[in-house]
Amino acid sequence: MRAEILEQPKAWTRLLQNGLPHVNAVADAVARRNPRFVLFAARGTSDHAAIYGKYLAEILYGRPAGLVSPSTTSLYDAKADHRDVLLVAVSQSGGSPDLVQSVEAARRGGALTVSVTNNPESALASAAEFSIDVGAGPELAVAATKSYTAELLALYLFFARLAGAGQDGARGLPDAAYAVLSSPAAESYARRLRFVERMVATGRGFSYPTALEAALKLMETSYVSAQAFSAADLMHGPLAMVDHRVPVLAVVPEGREGRAMQEVLSRARAARSEVFCVGSAAAVAAATAGTVLPAGLPEMLSPPVQILPFQELALHLALERGENPDLPRGLKKVTQTL
Amino acid sequence: MRAEILEQPKAWTRLLQNGLPHVNAVADAVARRNPRFVLFAARGTSDHAAIYGKYLAEILYGRPAGLVSPSTTSLYDAKADHRDVLLVAVSQSGGSPDLVQSVEAARRGGALTVSVTNNPESALASAAEFSIDVGAGPELAVAATKSYTAELLALYLFFARLAGAGQDGARGLPDAAYAVLSSPAAESYARRLRFVERMVATGRGFSYPTALEAALKLMETSYVSAQAFSAADLMHGPLAMVDHRVPVLAVVPEGREGRAMQEVLSRARAARSEVFCVGSAAAVAAATAGTVLPAGLPEMLSPPVQILPFQELALHLALERGENPDLPRGLKKVTQTL
Repeated sequence: MRAEILEQPKAWTRLLQNGLPHVNAVADAVARRNPRFVLFAARGTSDHAAIYGKYLAEILYGRPAGLVSPSTTSLYDAKADHRDVLLVAVSQSGGSPDLVQSVEAARRGGALTVSVTNNPESALASAAEFSIDVGAGPELAVAATKSYTAELLALYLFFARLAGAGQDGARGLPDAAYAVLSSPAAESYARRLRFVERMVATGRGFSYPTALEAALKLMETSYVSAQAFSAADLMHGPLAMVDHRVPVLAVVPEGREGRAMQEVLSRARAARSEVFCVGSAAAVAAATAGTVLPAGLPEMLSPPVQILPFQELALHLALERGENPDLPRGLKKVTQTL
Repeated sequence: MRAEILEQPKAWTRLLQNGLPHVNAVADAVARRNPRFVLFAARGTSDHAAIYGKYLAEILYGRPAGLVSPSTTSLYDAKADHRDVLLVAVSQSGGSPDLVQSVEAARRGGALTVSVTNNPESALASAAEFSIDVGAGPELAVAATKSYTAELLALYLFFARLAGAGQDGARGLPDAAYAVLSSPAAESYARRLRFVERMVATGRGFSYPTALEAALKLMETSYVSAQAFSAADLMHGPLAMVDHRVPVLAVVPEGREGRAMQEVLSRARAARSEVFCVGSAAAVAAATAGTVLPAGLPEMLSPPVQILPFQELALHLALERGENPDLPRGLKKVTQTL
């Protein structure tokens, strides 16, 4: 897991250099069909990449977008009219049978289908009309890290091209990742968490999928109860369960998202919670500990970099507790469900 | 909260008798416009009703459906082409400014908009082209109960009419609720939970929103860490954190959803977890404790009844711990966010 965390900047560089022409070719083919509505199908970690993709579809591409529930196909055999729909299925392995079924059902219903996977030979890649290989290389640790950020980057490049927006901002991502990975803050804070039972992760907008993925990594590798909420939902109720025993993992970038986080942070402090922050220098300075994101990183491009300290936190908390982060109990690499 | 839980069968009867003609009139007006995609906007408890609505839109009405992220409008000012889109906004109070903004933005973009609220005088009801009053009566306890199930029932009646399906099955719901509310199982099991710190709730398909709402009620009133997962996602990783300290709240109705739950239940037992089950007689018999759902309740109509024992569990756990379930700390009735 440690090696795969550290490989991420290189995996992104490969995608930016070798993978980009194919991503653009798929985007151009999709653009010619001019879909009116975007749906995402995914599970687990890739579901968080899909939520990021949904924001891109709505904000960058200007299309209404939603997430599919795979069980509507696998459990209820729903048959919807999918003409004018772009269905994007995101999966590390490309092997989940219910995702394959979702793609097949949408395609039969008239959808334009695109898979985003780390395995171009997978059943999912075959089921979709177009397939994008995120090219992160074989992922051996059971908890997904590099495949997640490669999915984020592939989705960004795809929707930026589809929207006719520039993709150049993404070129700075590998250097931003090296800067963040050089910080010792996450490893150091992980030592403090040895006895923690519960954590809450939170972010707004593009940073919300980061909070979801941070919570999932911590649950998967360290068996803590980690719950993610958008800051809006957290304030509406669950903040009541935050006290000195429950640290808050907060994603507080510069700009609108960070400003929208201020109330939740001050209420967490009032509840005597510690805050581990990934965000702007000012936000990290106001927190108990944290990792500063490079200044000027656009909020839309921030998620692949934001998750890195949380991946490290999950890795080092597992090690601190004598767990094996490469082979957590109860975790399968491919979701197989009825 | 206790009074409002017990009022639910009467609130449903009112909606089935007095509210139905208006629900049908709205559905008929929407049917004439023949929308091709359905989007839902909601927060908190109403978000769980919206997930139920999404299943109805896909399975009953045969339209691709998704959930809107209110922050794409409120935070990023996304402007998408919403022609042929039906946007359904669900909110108890109808007062959340970001939901109002989502409806206004979708309507400007060409969407047909419908609000489903417990306050026909609200800003949300005014912002939407059509408004459905769930008619649950004033809800005084801060944790929503009767407005949630009235939203579920209103959504069922609306989509059943829209799909040209019968609505008669819903007539049996009040009696099913009386049967479930007469069970002492939830109150009794709540006493056992005095020292619990963490719980996991799970369900598949139409029962998944029940798991989400059960977890939220327990967090809101009793400050436990309660996390909900679809059974598929739970097995893919988070089940690793379930052990003797973590009871599993499982929704296991008859039929496909119940069968899809069997593996997760046997794995929970293997992890020495207790299971509190709301479901078929066989499923409850195999669990530590639980409440039996009336036999023959269609899975699509089961959610309003399924949630009742969990509302009681949240109420009685709060009382068991000396908390005030009517006025939990940290909870506001109306979500107001940037």
